[in-house]
Amino acid sequence: MKFNNHNVKIGLNVRLGKNVRIGDNTTIYDNVQIADNCIIANDCVIGEPDSSYYSNDNYQNPETIIGANSLIRSHAIIYAGSTFGEGLTTGHRITVREGAHFGKNCLISTLVDIQGNAQFGDYCRLYSNVHICEYSKLGNYVFIFPYTIFTNDSRPPSNVCIGPTVGDYTIIAVHSVVLPGTTIGSNCLIGANSVVSRDIPDMSFAVGSPAKVVRDIREIGSREKDGSQYPWMYNFERGMPWEGIGFDAWSKAAENK
Amino acid sequence: MKFNNHNVKIGLNVRLGKNVRIGDNTTIYDNVQIADNCIIANDCVIGEPDSSYYSNDNYQNPETIIGANSLIRSHAIIYAGSTFGEGLTTGHRITVREGAHFGKNCLISTLVDIQGNAQFGDYCRLYSNVHICEYSKLGNYVFIFPYTIFTNDSRPPSNVCIGPTVGDYTIIAVHSVVLPGTTIGSNCLIGANSVVSRDIPDMSFAVGSPAKVVRDIREIGSREKDGSQYPWMYNFERGMPWEGIGFDAWSKAAENK
Amino acid sequence: MKFNNHNVKIGLNVRLGKNVRIGDNTTIYDNVQIADNCIIANDCVIGEPDSSYYSNDNYQNPETIIGANSLIRSHAIIYAGSTFGEGLTTGHRITVREGAHFGKNCLISTLVDIQGNAQFGDYCRLYSNVHICEYSKLGNYVFIFPYTIFTNDSRPPSNVCIGPTVGDYTIIAVHSVVLPGTTIGSNCLIGANSVVSRDIPDMSFAVGSPAKVVRDIREIGSREKDGSQYPWMYNFERGMPWEGIGFDAWSKAAENK
Repeated sequence: MKFNNHNVKIGLNVRLGKNVRIGDNTTIYDNVQIADNCIIANDCVIGEPDSSYYSNDNYQNPETIIGANSLIRSHAIIYAGSTFGEGLTTGHRITVREGAHFGKNCLISTLVDIQGNAQFGDYCRLYSNVHICEYSKLGNYVFIFPYTIFTNDSRPPSNVCIGPTVGDYTIIAVHSVVLPGTTIGSNCLIGANSVVSRDIPDMSFAVGSPAKVVRDIREIGSREKDGSQYPWMYNFERGMPWEGIGFDAWSKAAENK
Repeated sequence: MKFNNHNVKIGLNVRLGKNVRIGDNTTIYDNVQIADNCIIANDCVIGEPDSSYYSNDNYQNPETIIGANSLIRSHAIIYAGSTFGEGLTTGHRITVREGAHFGKNCLISTLVDIQGNAQFGDYCRLYSNVHICEYSKLGNYVFIFPYTIFTNDSRPPSNVCIGPTVGDYTIIAVHSVVLPGTTIGSNCLIGANSVVSRDIPDMSFAVGSPAKVVRDIREIGSREKDGSQYPWMYNFERGMPWEGIGFDAWSKAAENK
Repeated sequence: MKFNNHNVKIGLNVRLGKNVRIGDNTTIYDNVQIADNCIIANDCVIGEPDSSYYSNDNYQNPETIIGANSLIRSHAIIYAGSTFGEGLTTGHRITVREGAHFGKNCLISTLVDIQGNAQFGDYCRLYSNVHICEYSKLGNYVFIFPYTIFTNDSRPPSNVCIGPTVGDYTIIAVHSVVLPGTTIGSNCLIGANSVVSRDIPDMSFAVGSPAKVVRDIREIGSREKDGSQYPWMYNFERGMPWEGIGFDAWSKAAENK
C-alpha cells in the first residue's frame, strides 16, 4: 500500500536526500529540497506556487527546504518559499504559506493554518487548527493549543500589520486570541479562552478577556506531585531534548557546548 | 461519474458487505470491515495507520469497523482502530484518530477533528469543526454545535489528561470550551461561547465564562409554541428514532422491549 | 506541472468558457457553467451533488455558475446549486453547500465553511475558517475575519432557523459569534472575540460578550495618519473598485452611471 509511486509528480530542480519516501498523489513543485530520511505522505503538495504562477510565464518558484527526518502527514499544502529545520512532524491538512521559517523538531498539527512570513524557533508545537498570522515571531519551545489565533491588524482592514511576539517556553491554552503587536514574554502561561491585548511579562500566568496577569507561574500547583507545575520543563519531557536526563542537566550540557 | 473504481486502493483483510460502494481515489488500509449498504465517497482514507507503519516492517493495522448503512462523505480520514455503529453520516474532511468508538446513527460534520480514544453514544451529532480531545465520554443524543472544543490537560503540557464527560440529551452551543475533567449532566443546555470549568448538574441551562447555571432548562420558552422548548426531545424529531411517534410513545415502546 | 489534464472528470452539460483551465484530479459534476478565463486548481470538486445523488437514479444536479476571471484554489468543494459572480478568489479547502449566492469579486479564504442557502453581496471577504450558517444575508464590502461564526438556531435543536443580516461596509473581527436573527447595520466594526446577541445600529463600534456599542466608528483613530480610520473605505483600497481613484471619486462616478 505504501509508496507505490502512483500519480506522484515532481517538478524541476527538486533535490531529494537519501531514503526520502514520497506518497501517492503527492505533487512536489520546482526548487524544493527534501533532506535525508523524510517521509512525505499521500496527497501532499510541497512548494505550492503563488497565484502569479498561473499568469506569468517566467514565474520562478522560490526555494523550499524540508529538513532531515521529517514526517509530513497526508494532505499537507506547503507553499514555496518556506523552510523547516530537521525533525518536522505534521498532522493532516496543514496549510503553510510562503515565507514561514521553522526551527528544528517542530510540530504542526492537523488543520493548522500558517499565513506565511512568520518565524518559529525550535521545538514549537502548534496543535489542531491553530491560526498564525503574518509577521508573528515565536521563540523556542512555544506550545500553542487548539483553535488559538494570532492577529496582526488592529484597525481592520488597514495597511499596518504587526504580528505578535512570543518568548521561549511559553504556553498558550486553547481558543485564545493574541491581538496585533502584543509581546508575550518567556515562560508564560495564557489560560484557555483568553484575549491577549497587552504585553505580558515573563513568568506570568495571564487569563481572561482582556488577559490579565493573575499570578506568577511558579505559584501554580502541579497535579502530579507536590510543588509547582511551572516552569513546565521540570515536569514534562516527552519529545523534548531533555527527555531522560532532566531539564537542568540538559541546560548545563547545552551551555557547555 | 460515480463509483468508477478509479484509483481505489484496498489493503489486505478488508471485508466489504453487500452493496458497499467505494468512491474514486479512496484508500482502504488493512483490516477494515465495512458493513452492508455503506457509501464511502471519493478521496477518503479509511484505516489510516499510525506513524509506526512507516518504520516498523511488522506493523499490524488495528481493526476498523464501519456499521451498515453509513455514508462517509469525501475527503474523510479515519484512523485504524476506531469503530462506528450503523447509520453513521459524515461531512467532508473529517479526521478521526485511533480508538474512537461511536454508537449508531451518529453525525460527524465537515472538518470535525476527533483526537481518538474517546467514546460516543448513539445519535450523537457533532457539527462543523468540533474538536474532541482524548478521553472524552459522551452519552446518547448529545448535540455539539460548531467550533466547540473539548480539552483534557489542565496544566499544559502535563502527563495527566482527563477528558470531559457529557450526559444523555445534552446540547452544547457554538464556540464553547469544555475544560478538563468536567462533567456535564444529562438534559443540559450550554449557551454559546461558554467555558465550562466546573460540573453542571442535570437539567441545567448554563452559560458564560466560566459557565454558571442560570436556570432550569424547563424554564426556557419555545419560539415555536407556548411552553418550554426543553427537554428538546418533545419539540424536535428530525432524524431521531421518535420521529413521527413522539418522544413519550417512543420511550414507552423502548422500555417495553 | 500545470494543467496536464490528468485525472480530470467532467460531467454532462458542463459549459466551459474561453481559456478556462482545470487542474489535475479535479471533478466537475453535471450542469456546471464556468465562465471565461477561470482557473480551477488541482483536486477541486465543483457541483458536488447532495446525498440523494447516491440513492435516486433520476437525480438531476442543480445548476452551478462560476463567474468569469475566477481563481479557485486547490481542494475546494463547491456544491451544486450555488452561484458566484465574476472575479471570485478562493483559498484552499473551502466548502460551500447548495444555495449560496455570491456577488462579484468575493474572497473565500482557506477552510471557510458556508452551510448554503445564504446570500452575499459584491466584494465580500471571508477570511480563514469563517463559518456562515444557512439563511445569512450579507451586504456588499463586508469583511469577516478568521474563525468568526454565524448561527441561526436560538433554541438548538429546533425547527426555527433565522440567520443574521449584515449591512454594507461592515467589518467583523476575529473569533466572534453572531447569534441568530441579529441585524448588524452598515459601516459597523465588531471587535475581536465578540458575541453579537442584539441588533447593532449603523456606524457603531461594538465589542464584548454580549457585544455593546462603545462608540461611533468615526471616533476610532487611525494608526496611519491623523484622524479617524473609519469608514475604512477612505483608508484602504487594495483590491477595491476605488483603488487608485479614492472612495469619493469612485462613489460619484458610480452614482452617475
